[in-house]
This record gives sequence, C-alpha cells and structure tokens, in this order.
Amino acid sequence: MRTTIGWMSTEGTTALRRVRIERRDLRDDDLAVRVDYCGVCHSDLHRIGGLLGEGALVPGHEFTGTVTAVGAAVTAFSVGDRVAVGTVVDSCGVCEMCRIGQENFCYEGPVTTYGGTDRVDGTRTQGGYSREYVVRDRFAYHLPDGLDQAAAAPLMCAGVTVWEPLRTAGIGPGSRVAVAGLGGLGHLGVKLAAELGAEVTVLSRTPGKAGDAHKLGAVDTLMIGDDQQTQRARGRFDLILDTIPAAHDLSPLLRMAALDGTLALLGYPLEQAVRILDLVQGRKKLTSSGTGGRRHTAELLDFCADHAITADVEVLPSARVQEALDRLGRGDVRYRFVLDLSDLDEPADS
Amino acid sequence: MRTTIGWMSTEGTTALRRVRIERRDLRDDDLAVRVDYCGVCHSDLHRIGGLLGEGALVPGHEFTGTVTAVGAAVTAFSVGDRVAVGTVVDSCGVCEMCRIGQENFCYEGPVTTYGGTDRVDGTRTQGGYSREYVVRDRFAYHLPDGLDQAAAAPLMCAGVTVWEPLRTAGIGPGSRVAVAGLGGLGHLGVKLAAELGAEVTVLSRTPGKAGDAHKLGAVDTLMIGDDQQTQRARGRFDLILDTIPAAHDLSPLLRMAALDGTLALLGYPLEQAVRILDLVQGRKKLTSSGTGGRRHTAELLDFCADHAITADVEVLPSARVQEALDRLGRGDVRYRFVLDLSDLDEPADS
Repeated sequence: MRTTIGWMSTEGTTALRRVRIERRDLRDDDLAVRVDYCGVCHSDLHRIGGLLGEGALVPGHEFTGTVTAVGAAVTAFSVGDRVAVGTVVDSCGVCEMCRIGQENFCYEGPVTTYGGTDRVDGTRTQGGYSREYVVRDRFAYHLPDGLDQAAAAPLMCAGVTVWEPLRTAGIGPGSRVAVAGLGGLGHLGVKLAAELGAEVTVLSRTPGKAGDAHKLGAVDTLMIGDDQQTQRARGRFDLILDTIPAAHDLSPLLRMAALDGTLALLGYPLEQAVRILDLVQGRKKLTSSGTGGRRHTAELLDFCADHAITADVEVLPSARVQEALDRLGRGDVRYRFVLDLSDLDEPADS
Repeated sequence: MRTTIGWMSTEGTTALRRVRIERRDLRDDDLAVRVDYCGVCHSDLHRIGGLLGEGALVPGHEFTGTVTAVGAAVTAFSVGDRVAVGTVVDSCGVCEMCRIGQENFCYEGPVTTYGGTDRVDGTRTQGGYSREYVVRDRFAYHLPDGLDQAAAAPLMCAGVTVWEPLRTAGIGPGSRVAVAGLGGLGHLGVKLAAELGAEVTVLSRTPGKAGDAHKLGAVDTLMIGDDQQTQRARGRFDLILDTIPAAHDLSPLLRMAALDGTLALLGYPLEQAVRILDLVQGRKKLTSSGTGGRRHTAELLDFCADHAITADVEVLPSARVQEALDRLGRGDVRYRFVLDLSDLDEPADS
C-alpha cells in the first residue's frame, strides 16, 4: 500500500484536516500521479455539506499532475507525462453507455473520483485534494502542450460540464447562448460558447457583471430579476446554461428560451419544482449534464488546446483550502480556485 | 347577435346546464359553423374543476362541423364545407411565433376556444359543447375527405398535442417511442407513432392493456410500477409521451428514456417536482406540448387523411355530457368521448 497526504472533510465542516491517506499499489493498468493542481468545485462544497449524504472524504475531482509510476500493462503513458483527471475514474466498460464513450453514465454506476467505490477492491475513493492519486490508465488524459497545468485543471469538471450541453445542442455560429451565473462553470461556458461562434449573453442576479462578461466574450448582460429586461429577451436563447448552485425559480429563465430551446440545469443537483406550463409555452426543454465520458473529455481538451482556452483561476497553496471553500460559498472567486498541492511535500505546521 | 344552445359548467360541477348563449354577428373574416361533433378532453375536466381558475364556461375545443354562413371577406370556405376547429381561435398574427405558424405560442397570448378573451370585442369565448360556433376563418381547417366527422374531432386537440412532440423529436422508422397512459392522447400517440414507423411501447399503470395496445399498433407493453420491467427498459426510448393526467413520479419514466432522450409531459399542466439527477443521468430532456399552430394542425389533418387515422371514439348525444365527463374522470373510456350536438336542435326535456 502507498500512502500520501490529503485534506479530509469530516462532519460537514470546511475546516479540512491534513491527514495521511492510503493509495493502492499499482495494478497493471494503473498510473501513479503526483497531483500538482486541483480545482475547487462547487459540488465539493455540496458534498462536504452532506447534500448527497457524504461522510468523511477527501474532495477533488478536477486535477492535473505528473505521472510518477506506471503499471506493467500501461502503454499510453510514461513517467513524466503531464496528465489530467476528471470526475470519473472507472466504469464497467461493457454496457451500452460505456461502449459509446459515455462512461459517466455507465449503467453499473461510474466510479467517482472521490466518494466512490473501487470496482476491484471495494475501497472508497478519495479525491485530488491530495499529493498523489492512483488511477486506471483509461481515465487519465494527456494534458495537451500549451495548456497551463493550474488553469487547465477546472476543464476536467467545470469545463466538460458546460461543454456537453453546448455540443449536444449543436451550438455554433448563429446560435444564441445565455449563461446564468458567472462562476467556475459559467465563465467557462461563456468562453467556450463564444469560441464556438455563438452570440453569448450573461444572465446575472447581481449588477456590475457587464465588464467581466464582456472580457470573457459575452456581447450582452441581463439582470435576471429585472422583469423588463427578461421580458425583452423572451424567446431569445437557443440554449441557457444555468449554473446557479442553489434551488431557484426556473420560470424567468424558461421564458427566455427560444421555441424548442433548452434550459440546462448545471449548478444544483437536487429536486426542483417545474411549472409545466413554462415548458408548454414554446415547447421548452429542460435538461442537465453529467460531466462527460472519455471521448468528449478528450475532445474538449483538444478544443481548448487549439483555441487557447483555460479557466481564469486563483491559485492557492493547498493549506488555504478552507479559505477557498468559504470564499467559494460566498461567491467570492474569479472564477475558480485551484489548489497547489506542492505544499504537501513540506512537513505540516506544528 | 346570434344565439345558440350550449352546455355550461358552473361551480365546478360536471352536471352541465343546457343554456342559451350568444354568438357574435359575423365579421368579414368569420364563419358560422354548425357544430356536429365535439370531443371531450381531459383538460375540459381540469377546467370545469377550476384547476386553471375558471368560472362558468361552455367547454369544448376539438370539434367538427359544417359551415352555415360566411363573412363578406371569406374566400377559403363556402357554406356546406366540412370544417374542424381546435384549441386556438385567434392570435396577434404579427409576433415571431405567429409569423412562423406557431400561433398557439402567440406572444400576446393565443385566444383559446373557450375561456379566452376575444381580441376584437373583449367578450369571453365559449366552446364547442354547443350547436353553433363563430370562428375567424384563419382558425378553421378544412376537414379532409375520408375522415369521419365524429372520429376526427379529437385530432384537433388530443391529436395535435401528441403530433407536435413526435414531429419535433424527428420520430420515424427506427425510433423507439413509449406512451404512458392509454386514453385520448395516448391512443392517438400510439397510432401516430406507429404510422410514422416507430417501434411503440405502451407504459401502463394497470394490467390488462396489452391486447388493446397491440391493436392500436404497439409492439410491447410494460407496467410502470414493475421495477424489473422498467429496469430492463432503462435507456430504451427516444421519446416518451407521458399522457397521465395527474401529478406523478417522473423518475421511473426518465430512467427509461435513452441518452439524450425526451420525456414529454402532456397530461398534467401544473407544477411537478423534478429530481435533477434523473436529468443528469443520460442527459435526459423534459418537455411538454402546447397543442399546435395552424401549420402543423393542417399538416396533421393531411397525414391522418393520407394514413386513415382517426380517434377511437364513443359517441354520445350531448345531453349525456355529464356521463361522459364522469366516466372520463374515472378513466372509463376507449378512448375519447365525442358529443353529438344534433340533439340540441330538439326542444329541451321539460
């Protein structure tokens, strides 16, 4: 058994503890990865808070690192390779979803990067807020040259979560896309949609976002709470990426969707009340996104490398993880915190 | 002012009263229609019961009849023509929705066939449970030769309500369609989907529907409450037409939708709780249908004439409207009641 250091949440507090955790010895198809940077995702907060019924866990499911060892059967990676890992680290490989490259929807349940159950030894997975991760080779991705390790980490969850609905909806030149909420997911949604050629509008709950939105590639900003503004935008958007990380009224957003347009709920994983007449009027579609499978994750990394897209990040030493989580909870981040795990090589403060 | 006889609901009771009602004198673009047959729609029950906040009203929004008089500017219809009228009888004609033939989504609000407000004189519209209706020519449709007047009436609401999601989803040969609920909408959903070339499965809440489902064109029947059956059907259907006319758990239905598949909620117009993770898993889409505009309503009538499709109806004299409504409320109908309004020509029973 290998050991490494990670940041563990217990009892719902954001005051994570620095603990020694075990990693499995390498199987034939495993890589050992030194985790260099790990993004702080809003779902980490949800799960630390027990929203999905979690206990103690080491969060972190969007990270980049460097291969330090490979199993006997690994051919696609070598020691020293730059790699990225996202939200899924294993799947059955044989069901219909796995066969078409949507391992994230594996019918046996994808193994999540933390809080999951390893398919081979039944142990609980622990995430990327740690200095080392052991991952099956199929679920590591080569980080393309030119992508900054820290700024690319959020592509692996936030990025692919917005990429999937953009791709599924066929967004391209002439499309009208809105992004509600300008955080980790939202700012990447704006960048990716704009790069795909869409006309992008940011829908904000708070004033003062127009300048930032414009810099990211949006052409317009609307206040969700301003009835006049939303009324003028009625039926405007082919796709709305709703990244608001809390339950909220979907009616104003659905009204701004075009005929046969789509509202993709990406920020909040629990139950929402839907007024069916909001779907009737204009045949709106409500959907979500469950990150991506291997095929589209690799596709996104290539797209980002070709178009020089990464997240706008604030990098903090991992010892400041609580500050990152607490500021994220208040929405005080532009636009994604990324933990630099190199401080875990040093002795803990006494 | 013209007068006619109709069946009026007051105070939420299904014991409708036979009353004399007024119809407007013909405007230049109006037709007077002798209503021959009017379907009894589940939404009539919803509205009689005040679900959408109705008061006294004459229901009925899917009827066929015969033109008895035309306004001075009418050129497309003549006295004696067989016509059909659906759920919308006017719209602004200039908004984006009207321009593309989706008058049912008119931004100024379509004028509904009953319980609406006439755009010219501000009077309240009263529906097709009556012997005469006066309608603007744009919202009457020629009933194609070969379509039975009684059996075609339900096409105008039930038919177009299922036609729209079938058409929008691009259903055709190779598509897998499920229909939940085998009533007025459901049985037409099965017939139309099968005729479009899809493989159709009926999802039932009660046993004993397999024979009927097969006769209508379905190849399979599954019990919604049987976890083994729904589990085997996981991810099977490109489109599920959900015609269940009450709030219900959407999770088992969403699980049976395919990757990027659609659940179209057609039976219940109010709020529903949606478990967002059910949308996440497989990127399911939730949508609805708001009947159809002029273009697709005419298209449906042509399709039905070409393929000899009408509703399976039980025709009752209009004096038995309460029986029809009460049996519909209990689900005791195969598959649509249609009122024969000719009995309104006779004196009322004393």
